[in-house]
Amino acid sequence: MKAIVNVGLKKGVLDDQGKAINHALGTLGFKDLISDVRVGKQIIIELNSNDKEKAKEEVEKMCEKLLANTVIEDYSVEIVG
Amino acid sequence: MKAIVNVGLKKGVLDDQGKAINHALGTLGFKDLISDVRVGKQIIIELNSNDKEKAKEEVEKMCEKLLANTVIEDYSVEIVG
Repeated sequence: MKAIVNVGLKKGVLDDQGKAINHALGTLGFKDLISDVRVGKQIIIELNSNDKEKAKEEVEKMCEKLLANTVIEDYSVEIVG
Repeated sequence: MKAIVNVGLKKGVLDDQGKAINHALGTLGFKDLISDVRVGKQIIIELNSNDKEKAKEEVEKMCEKLLANTVIEDYSVEIVG
């Protein structure tokens, strides 16, 4: 069983990395196709557990304590397998 | 329409960030629950297109040219909406 955690900046928070990638893709000829780029982290955690609900609760605690800066970031947790 | 691009280190490539997070989570009391941690990027691209197939081809080109270092990273592209 594993957890897929996606952490991204909240709407309205300036995404420098996204802007830089947007600009770079523009110079590579993709300008017309792109209206916005946002960049986040994906953290994949292999879990020693068979209890999906309990595992999800624990991973959410991990997000609150370490994986996400909840002031400026949102996170989602998906338990797979 | 938007593209969700996930970029992660290939299996076998040492993931320093993942190791550091694994260690930190261990000190926060999650040691027994975790067997491995891998960290990657999630890039969300808002697209000006109605052609899902064409859009996916273009985003894969973006990955090959800029978003992923294909020597050490794998990527996946999902078109949503």
